[in-house]
Amino acid sequence: MKLSVNQATVKRASVPEVVDACARHGVEGVGLWREPVREHGLARTAELVRRAGLTVSSLCRGGFFTGADQRLDDNRRAIDEAAALGARCLVLVPGGVSGRDLAGSRARVADALGALAPYAAEAGVRLALEPMHPVFCADRGVVSTLAQALELAGPHDGVGVVVDALHVWWDPALASSVAAAGPDVLSYQVCDWITPLPADVLLGRGLPGDGHIDLVGLTSLVGAAGYTGFVEVEVFNEAVWELPAGDVVAELVKRHATGWEPVVDGGHDRLPATP
Amino acid sequence: MKLSVNQATVKRASVPEVVDACARHGVEGVGLWREPVREHGLARTAELVRRAGLTVSSLCRGGFFTGADQRLDDNRRAIDEAAALGARCLVLVPGGVSGRDLAGSRARVADALGALAPYAAEAGVRLALEPMHPVFCADRGVVSTLAQALELAGPHDGVGVVVDALHVWWDPALASSVAAAGPDVLSYQVCDWITPLPADVLLGRGLPGDGHIDLVGLTSLVGAAGYTGFVEVEVFNEAVWELPAGDVVAELVKRHATGWEPVVDGGHDRLPATP
Repeated sequence: MKLSVNQATVKRASVPEVVDACARHGVEGVGLWREPVREHGLARTAELVRRAGLTVSSLCRGGFFTGADQRLDDNRRAIDEAAALGARCLVLVPGGVSGRDLAGSRARVADALGALAPYAAEAGVRLALEPMHPVFCADRGVVSTLAQALELAGPHDGVGVVVDALHVWWDPALASSVAAAGPDVLSYQVCDWITPLPADVLLGRGLPGDGHIDLVGLTSLVGAAGYTGFVEVEVFNEAVWELPAGDVVAELVKRHATGWEPVVDGGHDRLPATP
Repeated sequence: MKLSVNQATVKRASVPEVVDACARHGVEGVGLWREPVREHGLARTAELVRRAGLTVSSLCRGGFFTGADQRLDDNRRAIDEAAALGARCLVLVPGGVSGRDLAGSRARVADALGALAPYAAEAGVRLALEPMHPVFCADRGVVSTLAQALELAGPHDGVGVVVDALHVWWDPALASSVAAAGPDVLSYQVCDWITPLPADVLLGRGLPGDGHIDLVGLTSLVGAAGYTGFVEVEVFNEAVWELPAGDVVAELVKRHATGWEPVVDGGHDRLPATP
């Protein structure tokens, strides 16, 4: 799998700085976020990545379907933006539980996918529903397992799933779910689970190889399922954000070349926080 | 279901203070922890709860089977202590992932259960394996779903599971897993999932009714599965620990009487932290 760098990994860098860092280090894919793309300009960003020969492996993000408003208008705009960028997929974050009604909240996700799938198909954009780690079930993502995401994506042409190591690594059914996903895997993202978790659990992500996840094994499962897209590194980590974008990208290139071999000792309770 | 108060909910109170608060407020069950029991004395504690007419609904905790040492000796001592207290069960925390080998870590849990089950049966103690929220998979509990816990407990007489609302509420298979558990549910624990999570995720528990979990629904599922034991409140929360034990127990009695009806507004993203 070719390497892609999600721009959230180098959050403080502008779109041109991210594109430049990727180009300089021979990285062929980039994952973009809507807010910085808007800041640089949608058309300018599309032109910039095209000239640099980069593929937009994903655009983050649409979704948040579970509130009073399912945000369908904003999601249609996100689909248009993904189309303009030629992104391989638009990542959909489900949204958190509404009013203690987990089943109802999940049903709202299903409804929203049904409402958006035809629009996305017409735009030529694939929608990638992201199952999220259960720690985010209350406030961010009510779709908690890969199997559940596949069930929701299944009925719709052009709708698939994201396999993000952080979100799925703990799942007892991981191997069978990845195998079942097959061509429905539209995006494969990696980072690592580090302990102790920082105060903000959203930022509890280490560089691949620094934590408790068997990324060699997971990458092999995803490959065996027939996935031939990019492996995209998405790390939210204050300490990584402090580093120059070029240094981070260089480090990722190095780790990718080893096939995500562990970098720090994987002993129980002995992993330091990144970096 | 009768109410039980786990002493961790009023962590700063001594064993006699907890027993006294329960007795004064008509609570018939108490969940004990080994460390404070040891501090007060095992035989003295057993005598104290017996005289107060309390049932020890659970003893916390054994387990931590995944390290280099499976702690079998310490677990046998915990079984002896549970027997001395007449506890309805001994809660087993699985332990975190060792060396990035999740499958291997889970196999160590299975092995340890096999090693301990005969000893527990001879002592007349039931072992309650606790599936833990996936946020704890790395450092505390590799058994991540109720279905997985049931599979591990299944082969052994006298080994069952804990259903702790905090650990299982997000699970898409919750209803069918609880139904399948039936008489294997040895302990039912409640608290609530609050947002935003505090800096230490271990302390991210609210009083039942203050968070995002549908406890009315879950309690009904557990009851329908045939569970007739105590509903034990186990809350780790700094703000609750600051309150006098009697006040906390009185509040729990009040909430229990409503069948765990929501206390604060259950709207999306609008739940305050307890209390």
